[in-house]
Amino acid sequence: MKALAVMTLAATAMAWTAPAAAQFAKAEDAIQYRQGALFVMGQHFGRLGAMANGKAPFDARLAQENADVVAAMARLPWAGFGPGTDKGAPTKAKPAIWSEQAKFKEHADKLEAESIKLAAAAKTGSLDNLKAAFGPAAQSCKSCHDAYRSK
Amino acid sequence: MKALAVMTLAATAMAWTAPAAAQFAKAEDAIQYRQGALFVMGQHFGRLGAMANGKAPFDARLAQENADVVAAMARLPWAGFGPGTDKGAPTKAKPAIWSEQAKFKEHADKLEAESIKLAAAAKTGSLDNLKAAFGPAAQSCKSCHDAYRSK
Repeated sequence: MKALAVMTLAATAMAWTAPAAAQFAKAEDAIQYRQGALFVMGQHFGRLGAMANGKAPFDARLAQENADVVAAMARLPWAGFGPGTDKGAPTKAKPAIWSEQAKFKEHADKLEAESIKLAAAAKTGSLDNLKAAFGPAAQSCKSCHDAYRSK
Repeated sequence: MKALAVMTLAATAMAWTAPAAAQFAKAEDAIQYRQGALFVMGQHFGRLGAMANGKAPFDARLAQENADVVAAMARLPWAGFGPGTDKGAPTKAKPAIWSEQAKFKEHADKLEAESIKLAAAAKTGSLDNLKAAFGPAAQSCKSCHDAYRSK
């Protein structure tokens, strides 16, 4: 039983540190995955932005739905940036992502944290709270795009 | 106050019945959105399938994480199939989607329901439960693809 437990732990550790090849059949899939996740997130984020910036009427229920999707999606794209996924399909991802992994992860973690705050703000039903949380979340998108996404 | 409440209700109703143009800036965005959401869902679904079919070791925690993502993603793609989104970017979506909207919606609803069952099954931590729920969920993907996705 102890040997089994150790093996299970080892297998779990492997799953968490496995290269992208283990999670995705090929680099192209990882690239398509991260692009898909970022695009879906961006669409919902944009709808929140329209409300926060007064370009769309504020609807507390829609704001919460969109913010919940953003918070759920914000966790996903990063698995698609594993080793060996810098090429394999058209991508705007800069090579620095793979040479500065710790810094890139900081950006990813920042977005996840801001998206959780944004969802909490949306849940209050207050446009002012949404506006206050939207700015820092948008800034976390922008700073990562400025550093790691080609024009 | 009553007038305001009526206006708010009207605005909410509009938001829910608005054509895709109101949710997406252009048809191309709707197409990219639904393709992204379906691809992300498919990747996580595939990992569950690998476990259910014995091609990957069963890991209860990973199964639950993947099933939760599938259940969250299963709600999203359908908004990307609004009126006018049958063209605008390369798509395998068949025209029948727009001429048989009620039938297409049945397929979407079926997947959402099966994905919720799948997540509940994964949560039990039992591979047998996962296997039992995976089959009907996979069948719901297949029947919709057979009817509405070009080869």
